[in-house]
Amino acid sequence: MSTVSPPTAAAITPDALLKHWQGHRRLTRRVIEAFPEDQLFTFTIGGMRPFGELALEMLAMAEPMARGVATGDWATSFERDPRPKEEILRRWDESTAQIDELWKQIPPERFQEQMTAFGQYPGIAHDLLLYVIDNEVHHRGQGYVYLRALGIEPPPFYERD
Amino acid sequence: MSTVSPPTAAAITPDALLKHWQGHRRLTRRVIEAFPEDQLFTFTIGGMRPFGELALEMLAMAEPMARGVATGDWATSFERDPRPKEEILRRWDESTAQIDELWKQIPPERFQEQMTAFGQYPGIAHDLLLYVIDNEVHHRGQGYVYLRALGIEPPPFYERD
Repeated sequence: MSTVSPPTAAAITPDALLKHWQGHRRLTRRVIEAFPEDQLFTFTIGGMRPFGELALEMLAMAEPMARGVATGDWATSFERDPRPKEEILRRWDESTAQIDELWKQIPPERFQEQMTAFGQYPGIAHDLLLYVIDNEVHHRGQGYVYLRALGIEPPPFYERD
Repeated sequence: MSTVSPPTAAAITPDALLKHWQGHRRLTRRVIEAFPEDQLFTFTIGGMRPFGELALEMLAMAEPMARGVATGDWATSFERDPRPKEEILRRWDESTAQIDELWKQIPPERFQEQMTAFGQYPGIAHDLLLYVIDNEVHHRGQGYVYLRALGIEPPPFYERD
């Protein structure tokens, strides 16, 4: 008989975290879709960035963060120039598939490891991933205000399918 | 020698989830503080709720969700009438301490259990808790736009201490 440590308690498993994130990504995709093409890179309130720029920031953080945690490759893009909504949605869908693939390559213990994201943000892997998800939810919340100010009803917050 | 199952993989442990949430709560408290008293329950954009109402909703979800998960008591409040900022901040601080206390009463396996929050929202405990955190981040993002529209610089998103 050997004495074993109790299993590490999980509030959220790796699978559950991915499912949670992809649910948010489906909602954010609907928010991008809801923007009129001619407002995506022009409409602002209070001097904040237009939603198109925020969507490009999300694209530059999401798949690159998953890749960094999975492989140690921290390449990303700082390109925020206006582009057609169709291109953003296409890149969004490509990232969604890539994140699923990269996630499979993350060993379970990696989520508790200290690392430096993009060469400048130190943190534990799960905190870095949560930061990317929270940044998406935060900026999407701003997108909701922009849509309402444009007279457009945003998609329901609670629908993630 | 005995064969043991590998430990349950944790992307996020119960302690880490609490720490994450309380970091968000410190930031949200600063956003409430940043609102001018006379705009907290009056300023809106696009017909959305003023930030004071959103803060009361957060209060009605946070500690009550932690209590529900910990004890099965799902009582909450639907009171959203205007009140002084000082009262909201005081209740915020009380909830912060209560959430810490309630968290200690949540058995680790509880986070994976199916339950029905407030008698009407079915879900796994960790998803219900994440929903409350995300709802706070989402509405706080709206608060950032309100503050910018009022000419007030919001607190930095990345500071959670």
